[in-house]
Parts: sequence; structure tokens; C-alpha cells
Amino acid sequence: MQEIEQIFRFIVELDKLKEVYRKTKSIGSKRYENAAEHSWQVCLTALALREYGCQSIDINKVILMLLIHDIGEIDAGDTIIYESETIERYQQEKAGVKRVLSLLPEQQANDYFKLWQEFEEATTPEAVFARAVDRIPPVLHNLFGDQHSWRTHNIAKEQVFEINQRVGEASTELWDYLRGQIEEAFKKIESSP
Amino acid sequence: MQEIEQIFRFIVELDKLKEVYRKTKSIGSKRYENAAEHSWQVCLTALALREYGCQSIDINKVILMLLIHDIGEIDAGDTIIYESETIERYQQEKAGVKRVLSLLPEQQANDYFKLWQEFEEATTPEAVFARAVDRIPPVLHNLFGDQHSWRTHNIAKEQVFEINQRVGEASTELWDYLRGQIEEAFKKIESSP
Repeated sequence: MQEIEQIFRFIVELDKLKEVYRKTKSIGSKRYENAAEHSWQVCLTALALREYGCQSIDINKVILMLLIHDIGEIDAGDTIIYESETIERYQQEKAGVKRVLSLLPEQQANDYFKLWQEFEEATTPEAVFARAVDRIPPVLHNLFGDQHSWRTHNIAKEQVFEINQRVGEASTELWDYLRGQIEEAFKKIESSP
Repeated sequence: MQEIEQIFRFIVELDKLKEVYRKTKSIGSKRYENAAEHSWQVCLTALALREYGCQSIDINKVILMLLIHDIGEIDAGDTIIYESETIERYQQEKAGVKRVLSLLPEQQANDYFKLWQEFEEATTPEAVFARAVDRIPPVLHNLFGDQHSWRTHNIAKEQVFEINQRVGEASTELWDYLRGQIEEAFKKIESSP
């Protein structure tokens, strides 16, 4: 197969991420958000918040990571983050990432797989920042959208703090601000469950 | 308003692009594609095809352009590309881009607006490449998806060539390949309309 044809098949395969539905709804939307549009939004979130990181980061690398961070879900599907951090889950996503990337020419496949692994291992400043940013839009969907998914899935405030504390690993300032907003949101949930 | 709050409002505003539906369907999907997931897909398209440009390009700049290239459609909506290149349309999108970006801190708003203008003016190698890449997934959706939108909207082969010839401005090799595929696709349309 010609290399162009290979890449075209990869691009078409990406379509499937548009059908992987997440557990949150965007503001004003009746449907659940999909992992493709989420990936786009987190890239712009990273870009807009890039000055808030505690460590200096290569923002371009962060964006590349975020563009590909969910492609394993084409095979593995989406799980609510409050249940998602298991070894089995990781293996499923890893196999998915490998399968999708295998459509590409080898060098590209290797490069993107390394980037995905770096994101998962969360040891570099870029990975820490990307993983923090990945959490932010879903929190905002709850804060600006009547706490919809927290209410629907009966999520407790402590769970929200636990799952999102990685924001604090990337940026104390952002996390302090978000924490205050989450406190306010749960006061609303408690006063009108 | 605190700067973080400003940026959060921008991020939430981006949700609206997920509700701007385009005129093509992704492969295997029953619904029309939206402009947010399209934006994600063209970023990865640019990345995967970056070696095919005739001119040397800064791929990171191309990706930034593609991340924001459609945000004016939050206000202006989507038009089928075969009708979209009017001055009125340009003015509507420009006003939309300005309005959405005005939610951001001023420096960021100015930077992204310049990037959007560069994309529209199509004079730099990055803009030429980004605009070429923007055309590719919709062509692939037709090539791999039974020519769906070309059939639905009664698009003639000459129109497809005309609207997509900008691919050739960025990459002779890609355009030569795509042209061959488009020829084949229209033979199918003619033999079973």
C-alpha cells in the first residue's frame, strides 16, 4: 500500500472516536459529549491556560499529547473517570492505541506511541500539565451546567476533589480557584438535591 | 473578573462549536459531523501528512491555526464549502471569531486573531498547508463513504476539483493522488447514480 493511502486509512479510522460518548454533557447540549470534540477542547484549554503551569512546559508537545490521548478509546470505549484508573483499563487502552497507530507509517506510529506513554506515565512537566488540563472541561461542564454529571452519577465532593487534585500538581493557582468553585457547587447540590 | 474566570468562560463558550453541524457525515455515522470534532481530526491530518508539503512548514503553527480556524462558526454557522467563499460570509465569521476571542485576556485574543487572519489570507506556507489539510477529511468521507455528500448535494466532479485544488497548492503529490481517487469515485456515481 502506498504511504499516502496508509495515512488516509488512519484519518478515516479516527472518525470512530467521534462515536465514543463520554459521561458529561457540554453546556446547553442534550447529548453526551464525544471523545473527539473533547480532545479538541482540551487542546484549546491547554493553550489558554499555559501560563498557569508551575513548571515551564513545551506547549506544542502538550497539544500533541492531548490530540492523541484518547485514541485508545476507539477500541476501549469511555469509562467514567471515577472508575477508570485500573490496570485492566490501561491495558485495553494501550492495545487500542497500538492498533490505531499501526495504521500509520512505522516512524510516526512509534513517535505517537511514545507520546501516549509519556502522557500515561505522568512524569514529565508536559504530561503533568496535559493530564491536569484533561480534567478541566468536565469540571467546568458541571460548574456551569447545574452539576449535571455529578448529580446523575451521585458523585460525592470528596471524589471530585480526589479525581481532580492532579490539577494541583500542574498548577496550584488553578486548583485553588477550582476547589473554591467546587465547594460552592456542592453547597447547591446539598441545598437542592 | 479574575483572569482564570475569563478563560473558563472562553472554554465553556467553545462547547457551542460542538453543536455546529457540517454537511458531511463521518464514516459509519448516522449523524452529521460537527465543527469541533472536525477541528480535532484536521489537526491529526496535518500532523500525519506534514512531510508532504511542497514548502517547509512550522507544523505547530499549522496545528494552532487548525484548532481555531472554525470558531467563528459558533456565531456564523456552517455553510457547504461549495457556497461558502463570499465576502458576506467572511465578515460574519470574522465578527464571530472576534466575539468569541474577546472572552479571553487581550494578548491571547490578539495572538489567536492574527493566526485566524493568517489562515484566511492564505499567503504563508503554514496557512496554505492548513487550508489544504482542512479539505482532506471531507474528501475522504466521500471517498470511503459511498460519495455520500457529493451525491446528496448533487456536486459535480468539476466542483470537487475546483474546491479542492488548494490541496495542490500545498502538495502536488497529495493532490495527484487525491485527483485519481476522485476520478474513480465519480465513475461509481455515474455508473450507479
